[in-house]
This record gives sequence, C-alpha cells and structure tokens, in this order.
Amino acid sequence: MTEPTVPPTRDELDLRAYESRLTRPVREKAAELQEGVRLKHVIFAGQLWPQLLENLADTADQIRVMSKSRPGQDFLRDLLANKRAMLYFTQPSTRTFLSFTAACQILGMVCNEVRDASTSSEAKGETRFDSIRMFSSYFDLIIMRSPLARLAESCAYLMNDLERSGQRSVPIVNAGSGADEHPTQALLDIYTLQRTFQFENPMDSPVSRLDELRSSYGYSDLAKGLSDKTYCFCGDIGRGRTVRSLAMLLAEYPGVRLVFVTPDHEKLRMRDDLRQRLMQKGVPIFEVDSLEASVNGKPVIETLDALYMTRVQKEHDTADDAAAMAQLDLTPYKLTTTLVRRMKAYAPILHPFPRDQHFGEIPAEIDADPRAMYFRQARNGMWVRAALLAHLMDADGQIDRYYHRKFHERHEYSS
Amino acid sequence: MTEPTVPPTRDELDLRAYESRLTRPVREKAAELQEGVRLKHVIFAGQLWPQLLENLADTADQIRVMSKSRPGQDFLRDLLANKRAMLYFTQPSTRTFLSFTAACQILGMVCNEVRDASTSSEAKGETRFDSIRMFSSYFDLIIMRSPLARLAESCAYLMNDLERSGQRSVPIVNAGSGADEHPTQALLDIYTLQRTFQFENPMDSPVSRLDELRSSYGYSDLAKGLSDKTYCFCGDIGRGRTVRSLAMLLAEYPGVRLVFVTPDHEKLRMRDDLRQRLMQKGVPIFEVDSLEASVNGKPVIETLDALYMTRVQKEHDTADDAAAMAQLDLTPYKLTTTLVRRMKAYAPILHPFPRDQHFGEIPAEIDADPRAMYFRQARNGMWVRAALLAHLMDADGQIDRYYHRKFHERHEYSS
Amino acid sequence: MTEPTVPPTRDELDLRAYESRLTRPVREKAAELQEGVRLKHVIFAGQLWPQLLENLADTADQIRVMSKSRPGQDFLRDLLANKRAMLYFTQPSTRTFLSFTAACQILGMVCNEVRDASTSSEAKGETRFDSIRMFSSYFDLIIMRSPLARLAESCAYLMNDLERSGQRSVPIVNAGSGADEHPTQALLDIYTLQRTFQFENPMDSPVSRLDELRSSYGYSDLAKGLSDKTYCFCGDIGRGRTVRSLAMLLAEYPGVRLVFVTPDHEKLRMRDDLRQRLMQKGVPIFEVDSLEASVNGKPVIETLDALYMTRVQKEHDTADDAAAMAQLDLTPYKLTTTLVRRMKAYAPILHPFPRDQHFGEIPAEIDADPRAMYFRQARNGMWVRAALLAHLMDADGQIDRYYHRKFHERHEYSS
Repeated sequence: MTEPTVPPTRDELDLRAYESRLTRPVREKAAELQEGVRLKHVIFAGQLWPQLLENLADTADQIRVMSKSRPGQDFLRDLLANKRAMLYFTQPSTRTFLSFTAACQILGMVCNEVRDASTSSEAKGETRFDSIRMFSSYFDLIIMRSPLARLAESCAYLMNDLERSGQRSVPIVNAGSGADEHPTQALLDIYTLQRTFQFENPMDSPVSRLDELRSSYGYSDLAKGLSDKTYCFCGDIGRGRTVRSLAMLLAEYPGVRLVFVTPDHEKLRMRDDLRQRLMQKGVPIFEVDSLEASVNGKPVIETLDALYMTRVQKEHDTADDAAAMAQLDLTPYKLTTTLVRRMKAYAPILHPFPRDQHFGEIPAEIDADPRAMYFRQARNGMWVRAALLAHLMDADGQIDRYYHRKFHERHEYSS
Repeated sequence: MTEPTVPPTRDELDLRAYESRLTRPVREKAAELQEGVRLKHVIFAGQLWPQLLENLADTADQIRVMSKSRPGQDFLRDLLANKRAMLYFTQPSTRTFLSFTAACQILGMVCNEVRDASTSSEAKGETRFDSIRMFSSYFDLIIMRSPLARLAESCAYLMNDLERSGQRSVPIVNAGSGADEHPTQALLDIYTLQRTFQFENPMDSPVSRLDELRSSYGYSDLAKGLSDKTYCFCGDIGRGRTVRSLAMLLAEYPGVRLVFVTPDHEKLRMRDDLRQRLMQKGVPIFEVDSLEASVNGKPVIETLDALYMTRVQKEHDTADDAAAMAQLDLTPYKLTTTLVRRMKAYAPILHPFPRDQHFGEIPAEIDADPRAMYFRQARNGMWVRAALLAHLMDADGQIDRYYHRKFHERHEYSS
Repeated sequence: MTEPTVPPTRDELDLRAYESRLTRPVREKAAELQEGVRLKHVIFAGQLWPQLLENLADTADQIRVMSKSRPGQDFLRDLLANKRAMLYFTQPSTRTFLSFTAACQILGMVCNEVRDASTSSEAKGETRFDSIRMFSSYFDLIIMRSPLARLAESCAYLMNDLERSGQRSVPIVNAGSGADEHPTQALLDIYTLQRTFQFENPMDSPVSRLDELRSSYGYSDLAKGLSDKTYCFCGDIGRGRTVRSLAMLLAEYPGVRLVFVTPDHEKLRMRDDLRQRLMQKGVPIFEVDSLEASVNGKPVIETLDALYMTRVQKEHDTADDAAAMAQLDLTPYKLTTTLVRRMKAYAPILHPFPRDQHFGEIPAEIDADPRAMYFRQARNGMWVRAALLAHLMDADGQIDRYYHRKFHERHEYSS
C-alpha cells in the first residue's frame, strides 16, 4: 500500500506491535480475553460457548421479567448507575447503537458517544490508541464499532497491557468490526433460538406446546434446545459477518446441520475459511442454490428447523461486483408467502435487520405470520446485550439474587 | 412522479395502505388517537379541545411550581425515570428538539436521538415503518419530526394496529411534520395566552391586575381567559404551520376575532382551506395588509388583545417565490417601537421563534418591553410539553395528588 | 470586512454593544464575573488566583476519593441531579467535550449538546444571543466552545444583564474560544502540577518521597508546591492558547522561572503581548531554540522542574505559514528517550493532548516513563472540571462537609 520510502505511521506501528497476538489461535486469544469463566472483553463470537450462552440467556430472561415491574426496573437502573459507557461508533449503525444504548440504560448506565472520527482528535493526528486511552480515562466501558478489522481486539490487548502495568483499564465490547466479527449479533441470534426452542412462550414460539407439536403436528423427534436441528442460512453468506459468527456458534451444539442457500457467486457464497472451520468441527454442511433444493431427499424449505434470511450487502460492492450481481437471478433468495406455508409449523424466521425494501428478501406480507421472529429478535438483542453488560460489569450475580428473592419462589409455587 | 413501469417502493405502499385512514374527517381520526378523554398519540392540533387545554395548563402550572424546590424536582424526576424516549428528528430543529429534551428530563426520562436519516438504517433500504418499529422495540415513547407530511400520523396508526394484534406499541408525538402540523407549538402558544390572560403573575402579564386594567386603563369589558378577544397574526400566514394550528384552536373559544396581516401574495396569505374551516366555525376573520389597517373602525395595532408575529420562511421558497418576494414591500410586517407603543397595555407579543435577524420582524429594541412575551413563551413550551408527556404516560394524576398534598393546601391557607 | 453600504447584522451589533465591556482591564472584567470570592462565570484564566486554585484542587481531591466507593459516587451523583447542562460546542473538540461531559455526569447532571451551528436555528437567521437565551431557558448551565474569540465573555455579560433585569440567567463556562482562552485547560494543568509537587502519591509523582529526593537525589532545595520552580514550555508557543493561560497563572507564584523553547518563527514563538504581561509581573523568562540550550549555565533539559510539550497546530496554518514551516528544522522540538534520561527524576512531562503522531513531539516510547504525566493529566481534567462545576453551582460546600464526615477523620486517625 505505502511506498517503501514512506515511514509507517504510529497507527500502523501500533497495529503491527499487536500482529503476533492477533494471529494466535482463537483458543489462545480467548483465554487472554477472559478471567476464569468470566469475559473481560467481548471481541469475537469464538469467545462464547454453550454454557456461557445458557447463563447469559438466564440473565436476559431475569432482566426482562424484572423490567415488567417498577420495583424491578428501579433495581436494575440502580445497578450500574455509577458507571459511564462510551459508544465509539466510527462505522454508522443505528440499530446496534440504539440496542446497546437501551441495554446500558436498563442497567442505569449513562451513555456517551463518538460517532464521527473526523470531528474527533484523530483529525489532529491523534493515534487510535491515544483516543481509546482518552475514552478509558473518562468512562468505565467502551463499546466500539469500526470499519477496521481487529481494531477492537487490539484495543482489548492495549487495556490488558495497561492493567498489567498498574494503570486504568476498562472492558472493550466489539459492536462490529469491518466485515469481520459482530459477536453480540450472534449472541442475540442464539438467544432468539434459545427462546423459540424452549417451546414455552407463545410470543417466542410460533407453536408453543412441545407435546402438541410432537403429536398433532407429527414432529415426533422434536426436542427442546438448540441441538439436533437443521439451520438454514439464505442470501449473502460470503459478506454477512453475522452468518459467520452464528454458524460457528451453532457448530458447538451436537446434532446440528447447516444449510447455506446462496447464488453461485464468489462474493456471496460461503468463504473457504468458514467452510474449513465448520468441517473441522465435523458439522454436516450443505451448500445449495435454492430453498427448493433437495437436501437428504426433501426440499430445504420443508426440512429446516430455523431459517436465517439476510440482506445482500450492496454497500460492500465494487463496480465489478455490481455488474456481476446484475447478471444473477436473485429471485430464489427472496422469501414468499408460498414458501413460508411449506415451512415447519414451529420454525422461526430470523433476519439480522435491516431488511432491504428494494431487494425484498422478506416481503411485509410475511410479518403477520407467527413464525416471523425478526422484530422479536431485535428486542431480544436489547435484553441479551443488557445481560452481557451485566456479566462484564460483574452485576449478573446481584440480578440473580434479586430475581430469586422476588420472583422465582412465587414462580415455583404458581407453576 | 414515478414512471408507470417502476413498481412502487415498500415505503410508498406503506403510506398508500393508510391513505383511507389519513383522509378521514378530523373528528373520526381524533377518536382513534385517544382513549376516552386521554390522548394516546399527539398528531395534530385538532385533537386538542378547551377542557383538555385547561387540564394541560393546570399540570404545567403544577410542574413549574414543583420545579422550584428540590423535593418537587426529585419527585418529578422519579416519575418516568423508568421510561426511555426516542427523539426521531429527520427535519432539523434545535429549539423544538431541546424543548422536548428538557421536558423529558424534567420527568426523569432518558432521551435518545436519531437526527440524520442518512446515517440510519434507511440508507440500507429499510422502510420507515421498520425504523419506527425498531424504535418502538427499544424505547417507550417516540417524539418525531419529519419533512414528510402525515408520517407521524401513519406511525400512530401503525402502533394502533400493532397493539390490536397483541404486539408492542408506544405513544407517538408529532413534533412537526412538513408544512403540515406542529401541535405542540400550538399548545405552548395557547398556554402562553392562558397565563397572560390570567392577569395574575407579573412575569406572564404585562399588567397583572385586572381591576387596574379595567379602571385605570379603561378596558372595562376585559375578562380573564381566552374568550372574547381579538388575536392578530402578522407575516407569513400561508406557510406558517404554527399559525394554522393556533388559529383553529382559538376558534374553539367563544367571542374570538381573528385578524391576519399579510402581504397580498398567494404563498404568504391565508390558504383557502384554513379560511373555509374558520368560516365554518363562524369565527369573524379579517384579512388586511398592514398593522395600521382599520378593522371595525380602529387600526388593528390598537385593538388587538394579542399579537402573533412570524418569520417569513424563506427556506421553503422556490426560485420563483424568491423573485416574487423580492418585489414585495415587507416593511409593514416588521414591528417597531412606535407600533408597540400603540398596543394595549396588556397585549402580549408572541413569536414561535427563531426570529430572523436579517428580516427583522421583531427588532431587539422591543425585547425590554413587558409585552414582549416570546422568551417567556419558549420556556412555557418546556413546561407544557412536560405536562403533555405526563398526560400521555399517565403520570399527570400522580403530579396532581403530590401537588395538592404539598402545595395547594398551603396555598389555600395563605391566599 | 463588510462594504460600508451593507448595514451591520444584528450579531455584529450585539458584539459591538459589548465592545466597551470586552476591552476593560482584566481585573475589572474579572470582578463582574464573580460574586465575592466565588466565580459566577468562567471565561478566562485571569479570573483564577492561587487561593482559588488551592480550593478547587481540594474539592477535586475530595471528589476523586469519594468516587472510589459506591456511597461516595451516589452522594456525588445526587448533588446536581436536578440540573441540566448544555454543551454548546460549535468548534469541534472530542477531548474537552467528553471531559466536561464526564465531569457533569459525576455530579449527576444530565448533559445536552449542540455541536453543529448549521443544524441549529442560526441557519434560520437567529442571532447567537437569541440562541444562548434559548439554551438558558431550558438548561441550568452553559458550557461553550466557539471559534469566535470573546463570544463566551459576551454571553456572560448578557446573562448578567438579564439577571439585573429580573430575568433568568445561568452560569457560562468557556471551554475554548478561538485562539484566545481555554481557562479550564490551564486549570487542569495547574492541578496536575499541584498533585505532582505534593510528592505524596506515586501515581502523580514520579518520585513521591520528598526526603528521598532531597537526600539521595541531591535536590536539597526542593520544596512542595508550585513556587520556586522552573517551568519549560516547548514547541508551538505562539498559537497555543493553553501555554498562554498556564504561563500567566504560574506567574502568580513566587520564585517561578519560565523557559520557552521554540523555533525562531513569528507564528511559533511567544507573542509580544504575553512577553510584556509576564515581564510586568517580574517573572524571569528565557527564550531559547532548543531543550539543550543553556540557561543560567546548564542545559534547559537538566534544570527544568516540569516540561510542557505542545503540538504544532497545523490546522491554523495559512498556505504561507505551511511553506515557511516546511523550511524549519523542527527536530529540536521533539522529545526523545535520550533527552528524558537527562531530566530531573521528579520532573513531570505534560501535554495538553492530542499529541500528533505524524509530527511526533512525544514518541510512544516515552509513555512508560514514570515522568510521563499526560494520560494522568487528562483524567485530572475530569476531576478538576467536576470541582469547578461544583464550585459554580454552589455544591462544593456540601462535598466538603460529606468528605469530612465520612473520610477525613478516618484518614487522620490512620495516617
């Protein structure tokens, strides 16, 4: 990129200094980002594991029950009222930004934001690391979204280094870095699936009685939980970081099958590295070009237990990409009411949102179907992000104690 | 606009779907926006009626008294501390935005904002309705200002539809939609007139003793309240949505006369629809081209009970408009100290602000006159918006009980 | 600037109206900005004096001790929870903005912001004074940063005039006005020096035992406090408003010597007015072109008690300036590890930050040196700004009483 005669900037040197730590195996890096079984920083989805996901879902469930009453709300809002959060979003995002903001506010944290790098001190030649240290001087938590892959990860290591030298350090949460990682999106996708596959609450499960599903609907093998299910991803797999992360997390559950429905275009179909990582885990994966394609003798649309639709991310298109895409027939990657009718009665439709009204991967006609879980999914994101922040700030134990004191006993008696 | 071969966007379809509801008579629409005598959404000034305006003024008065003491402030700030507001302002406005923000904060609500549609998910092809549903997922109240006429109204119907289908719904407050409606501006104008025509507080009433006004000043017929008065609007009537709304509300009070002082230009003078609606109500209206013009045998400036000045809204000018305006003599629509001297001693001067320093409809020399009520009017806006939010969120009853417990008895004994 | 035929705008008239008050001697102006020994508005560094700086440092120290415990944090957050602050920043600044925001939040104040004049009512022809009066209608404190020299000062006088006429007035804090004044930066610089020269806390003082410094290190004359020390400023003195303000404040302490290390360029070296004001105070000043230059027979770098580095403010460069600067050898104005090794063991390195990674006045290699106080300095800024706001809002007395009740006695017993 730079001519050999131009000396590297401090920013480049800073990132180079972390190069060897950034390229370590995920397992080794994850270890540096946690303390015992608790996360210190949340950087990539690979840090999450099924037991932790269960705990976070429990905390999220507790928070949402507590949020129904004024005393519960007041308890939650007092928990982290002494903490100040910085949302450092140099890549635009309304949805993720607002979801995190609401999550902070549920726990009483005041939110502060820097959203435009050009108005910040970076314009005066400040390094990114100096900016991050400034934020960590004034605030107690940094939630960051950046177009720069691995910036959040480097910042987490910077914080660890500062801590080791006796200086102030705060947790870093990655709210999306480049085309790379978006761990909390994966977290809310998993949480939505966890709620749906509890088959308990009609708001979360299109059909909420498991015995009825087994007998009347004939899904005799159906069991609670994320294991032993077929998950289908449809659309832009290659550039959808949320798909990458979610697929990797699902691969941790036994008996999971993954189906990827994409056009045969190198930018859109699954990338090699993801395919290899999934195969190393021994997960059966199927790559087809239509929701009607046959997998194990039946059309995908009829066998899937959950359908994850995505938007074709045109904002990442080069001019060549756009020309190539224009040649593709993308009709098979749009959901229709006819297709939805063929889906299993309980199978949720997810979408990381926003959906694209011009492309139309999910027409508004489908919104009224009880399997349309995408609006619910957005609100789930707020609750599970609040749970994650409570975990990071060591407040989940207090939530659990309050919940059991006030709600659980009553619940046990009444159920 | 669109060629017949281009299919309509989802956004267009969404608005069309509400077309039949948007075009119903005001009375019918207002019914859908309230529940009994309480407002569910605040969309247009036509939803307000004199008794409700009295109640809101009472709540506003109570809030401002309570805000003078720390215990009162603390009580207010606790009221809605469990609620989160979204201010969705895609049409720029500092004044209305800050006024609503302060109103929310008085009641303890945390404010969140989206002000630039281009940074939001709309740039990724999200429909406006999907955006609104996202906001309603995370927040408890949406205050919106949009260049699109009737968007707020459509959003209110969307919320009602969601509520009917058992889904989450939150109140919508219209903080200005296109050239169309700005109901809370009308509300604060009315509140300012209510305070002034109480003739009680010297801060609100240029002359605050009614008996003195009747005897020494010779206004023998003068009575408290908004009825039986002459209201004069001066300047840009055609494009001033605040004038439209306020005039319609004043028309509900008996004995009201309305004078409109505008240049004879089709963009600036009263629009036909407003004229017709006022005439249907049987309100005497006078349209003249100068504050010196004679109405019922006396110059307007000497007979008016309240003067509402406006800014010529050049930002709505087309190139043709600008050329036409340049030909007009706009001097008669600027207030002068000489004119103010001829006004009645108690007649307040209002202005929706900002005033235009380049046009100069109210020169700064007039600010020191006790009849200049425009700065007071701005602060009134904060109090009455807080009252409106308290009403919407069902907290006005608690305010009333606290007020009577702590203040009113003392007040009754002392007066 | 304007042709003689163009009438002045209201904004210009407003500022002209204050001209005679703006050009008064500092002492006279300072008197109008305070009430007894308390500040009403904070506009320029010349308002601060050593005893006030001691008091503010004491309050800042108390706040930071109280902030270590949850009860202390809760006490602080309740103090001004009934107040709303407006941060009106039309000159971009992330660092100062966030520092003030955090300071407000420590004391429980809700922060509101207007950062872009173009989105505000000013675009509709509103005068700056009308904008400020709007802010003072809704909020209880205005913290402002403007590219316009003396705007903050004019606003303070406007508030005083309003107060005199019985109208609402709020404190104004200048967070930087043009190339002119930045009093709270000087305040935090002084506070950092106060902490360092206490020789008590190892976080603040590179060597924290004064007896050890006197005996083992041979600084036999070294005493606590800011007096009797040599302060060295290096880099862009001419355009650094922080240097101007800090130098003037240091001149109030007895036995202070000031050394200015700058290239010989009229834009970068000390301006005549500062030189004259310092000489009038009788402070020994030395102007040299290198940190190696000899002052009183020894190289500056070895004799200084504190080193204040600055960034060359290229954003103020004209094209001619840039060309002239390109000819200069700026190497002597960059710190190196070799130079740092020659500094006194206790001498802190300060920098108003951001530092410039491209210029490199302080390379990152120096960050680990215990004398590198610039990150600490940033956090100090938050504490001392909180102290200043507490002073302005009359809450410092409450802090002092709480502190002595809860902490001081314990501290006295334990030490």
